[in-house]
Amino acid sequence: MDDGVLDRAFAALADPTRRDIVARLCDGDATVNEVAAPYAMSLQAVSKHLAVLERAGLVRRTSVGRQRRCSVETATLDALTTWLDRHRRAVESRYRSLDLLLARTGSEQPDQPTDPARRPS
Amino acid sequence: MDDGVLDRAFAALADPTRRDIVARLCDGDATVNEVAAPYAMSLQAVSKHLAVLERAGLVRRTSVGRQRRCSVETATLDALTTWLDRHRRAVESRYRSLDLLLARTGSEQPDQPTDPARRPS
Repeated sequence: MDDGVLDRAFAALADPTRRDIVARLCDGDATVNEVAAPYAMSLQAVSKHLAVLERAGLVRRTSVGRQRRCSVETATLDALTTWLDRHRRAVESRYRSLDLLLARTGSEQPDQPTDPARRPS
Repeated sequence: MDDGVLDRAFAALADPTRRDIVARLCDGDATVNEVAAPYAMSLQAVSKHLAVLERAGLVRRTSVGRQRRCSVETATLDALTTWLDRHRRAVESRYRSLDLLLARTGSEQPDQPTDPARRPS
């Protein structure tokens, strides 16, 4: 996955309104007016948020007649999930190895196996 | 989950160096010097990235003797995964419902069931 895609997608989701818009579009497509309806902000402000999400590849806007319909781009959400899952699994694998080490050695410091310092008692 | 936690965590991961640091710490704890070693940037620059990650709750720095040891905070990674999974599941559930609808009705427009406009032929 191109770093730029992840950069833009993580940055776009760092705003609660944009996360809320993505969450609502996950429940179903909507027109720009429908997306804007719940917010106490101008249609222009909501359109700016949608433009950020579109540039991030998280939302697609298509023209249907005179309306612009918004839908979520699941491929980019999947790219974020893949990144998080891969590294989360690395941590879990490490914890499992430490559990095994603990089971084998009966060590009382399984979480810092290479650390010579002792915990203060 | 507090919006601020997600705001800071998504924003922190919008930078490829910070994602790389998190990825490496998922493989194992490291000192600040070890974290900085692969990068063509000053120790101070790496420390700034670590400070952003620490404020975002993604990395914990603890003093061990004269060294500062960095480790990943899995709870915040889990919060991001939970947010993404919840909404990804909503999309999947919607697609399943549309598949069922398609199977029942034989409709040729299963992805826009509420849209009266026809696709241009």
